[in-house]
Amino acid sequence: MQFGINLFPTVTPAEKPAAQHFDEALRLAALADELGFHHVKTVEHYFTPYGGYSPDPVTFLAAAAARTRRIRLVTGAVIPAFSHPIKLAGKLAMLDNISHGRLDIGFGRAFLPPEFEAFQVAMDESRDRFDEGVEACRRLWAEQEVVWQGRFHQFGPVTMLPRPYQQPHPPILVATATTPVSCEAAGRAGYGLMMVPSINKPEKLQEMLELYRKSRQAAGHDPNTGDIHFSYNCYLATDATTAYRNGRRYSEHTHQKLVDAVAEWSRTRSADYPGYENIVQRVRSSDFDKSLAEDKVLVGTPEEVTARLSRIRDLYGDITVSLQVISGNMPYEESAETMRLFADAVLPRFPQPAPADDATSTAERR
Amino acid sequence: MQFGINLFPTVTPAEKPAAQHFDEALRLAALADELGFHHVKTVEHYFTPYGGYSPDPVTFLAAAAARTRRIRLVTGAVIPAFSHPIKLAGKLAMLDNISHGRLDIGFGRAFLPPEFEAFQVAMDESRDRFDEGVEACRRLWAEQEVVWQGRFHQFGPVTMLPRPYQQPHPPILVATATTPVSCEAAGRAGYGLMMVPSINKPEKLQEMLELYRKSRQAAGHDPNTGDIHFSYNCYLATDATTAYRNGRRYSEHTHQKLVDAVAEWSRTRSADYPGYENIVQRVRSSDFDKSLAEDKVLVGTPEEVTARLSRIRDLYGDITVSLQVISGNMPYEESAETMRLFADAVLPRFPQPAPADDATSTAERR
Ligand SMILES: [Ca+2]
Ligand SMILES: [Ca+2]
Ligand SMILES: [Ca+2]
Ligand SMILES: [Ca+2]
Ligand SMILES: [Ca+2]
Ligand SMILES: [Ca+2]
Repeated sequence: MQFGINLFPTVTPAEKPAAQHFDEALRLAALADELGFHHVKTVEHYFTPYGGYSPDPVTFLAAAAARTRRIRLVTGAVIPAFSHPIKLAGKLAMLDNISHGRLDIGFGRAFLPPEFEAFQVAMDESRDRFDEGVEACRRLWAEQEVVWQGRFHQFGPVTMLPRPYQQPHPPILVATATTPVSCEAAGRAGYGLMMVPSINKPEKLQEMLELYRKSRQAAGHDPNTGDIHFSYNCYLATDATTAYRNGRRYSEHTHQKLVDAVAEWSRTRSADYPGYENIVQRVRSSDFDKSLAEDKVLVGTPEEVTARLSRIRDLYGDITVSLQVISGNMPYEESAETMRLFADAVLPRFPQPAPADDATSTAERR
Repeated sequence: MQFGINLFPTVTPAEKPAAQHFDEALRLAALADELGFHHVKTVEHYFTPYGGYSPDPVTFLAAAAARTRRIRLVTGAVIPAFSHPIKLAGKLAMLDNISHGRLDIGFGRAFLPPEFEAFQVAMDESRDRFDEGVEACRRLWAEQEVVWQGRFHQFGPVTMLPRPYQQPHPPILVATATTPVSCEAAGRAGYGLMMVPSINKPEKLQEMLELYRKSRQAAGHDPNTGDIHFSYNCYLATDATTAYRNGRRYSEHTHQKLVDAVAEWSRTRSADYPGYENIVQRVRSSDFDKSLAEDKVLVGTPEEVTARLSRIRDLYGDITVSLQVISGNMPYEESAETMRLFADAVLPRFPQPAPADDATSTAERR
């Protein structure tokens, strides 16, 4: 298993001024780099405390690239439906070069109705816009003199600059919340997966992963090298009572921001989001103690969290885990302490793969 | 007068790999910060050696913010016609927070036909898209619950996150190549100006500045505090012959990339770009020795460049000058030496205004 951090902000300006948020997030990225974590990740969301401090993950990750040496930088995710593929491919290629090939690109469809409304994008076009955006970016990276004749964009022949550092392009991952057919498509394309364990039953996740691995193999891709990311709320303390009390408080704060963010789904229907009309009820009925009992949150002492991760590995195999260490308006010192305890006492229990030999750093080359 | 650096890349992948370009550009930004320069600036261009390594200036400036302490970060420029205002306002607000208020935002209309063609934006909509994009961003920064009903975009009510660090928003500058009426509009709005001395006669620039200052004053803005940026190719050496020979070579390399970039204007006409059909001929007829004689390039010994700048100040007043110190595929060491000579022997001849008291740094606060 590999472990990174997911810096998913869930704060309002009144709770934490944005400059303080970014100062702390950059310090945590540098700490993660020092402590040997695999990646730092952040989201793309708008307008609400549920991720709204991060309307452009590339901007944050570019600053993080300049403050780190070896850690990978992961968009979790960028949303092709809200950007022109030439803009998106261009800035991601810049980040790949600035970081000397440390970029992994997660693409997502988005799922909050007010975001689609603001960009005047029909939710029923979500899947088609996603497919077109990812493929247009992939071709802009991998090919020269690209001619694109899609449903939403037409351009070319153009050669995107800069060319990506990683050839033919950085690793691509696809975010998929609940849709098995998306896993199948990602496997067929040879892309990685970003999954949401908190809103799925283990049997559902296993079914999705089996589909993914089978379609990967059937398409001729190595069945084992597709990166599979799971994100979990995370809080560690040496004292079990403290861990439970604080972990519960930050998880419930995060959860409330999600409940507020999905409220529009009570008035929304889309053929591209089957079943999402039930998301409000499903999210509302979630409960911290139940999530903890089902290993859907990584809260506890280092020993407890190690045991949770062993059970997660038994269920899903050697996945890549993203620890949500700031969500819930966690104070900086508790985020850092969670990461230090994890690095000291949990990481060594899960031997890490050797770093890729191309993971040289900007800092080393200077 | 204030002096910054403009990192305008004009290289092909064969001339300089992108990772090397960004490494060097970040080192030069850090050097400029140490040497006391006022700002670091970069461009938005696509596909060709004429700026094409920089399709998203915000991505580069975010990395530069993380490597610097006090220097201002300037987009020179971002192009509203090619981005949704919610994307553009959001990432610029992130950069303003990451840098603790060191951002100045230059907006431009763009002028290369292949860029408009790739984004499927009509050049005849350029002015309207520019006006709408700048105003939509300004309102997203300055106001909450923004309702926007424009010609190209409609959204709201939405409250952009994060809120900008600088209130009500970072300083705004408007790039204008040759159009007096744009200067008048910028002055009326209280925005700064970014001008192109190389393609205008001094009398034309003086006329544009006079219009700008008058309309600033007439609209009730302080006539003296509008920032006026001029960019110049720059090369300094202690030996006059070396300065001339190398400065000429890099200027001519840069100029050739501009000649290639504007080639499509021989087949393009647009009501929003009156006179641009002559730009190919005008650019082609430009000559280094003539430009040098007219103080349109800052090439020479420190003493010669000081004399050029004194004449420039006599013509235009206490403007802000951006030194193009990498254009022409200049080797890193010559860029750095140009900046060191300038900081040692030219900067002290032009006393700098005291830094604003809000220019505290990310690094200092950590
Ligand atoms: Ca559909
Ligand atoms: Ca074309
Ligand atoms: Ca690699
Ligand atoms: Ca027009
Ligand atoms: Ca709305
Ligand atoms: Ca200020």
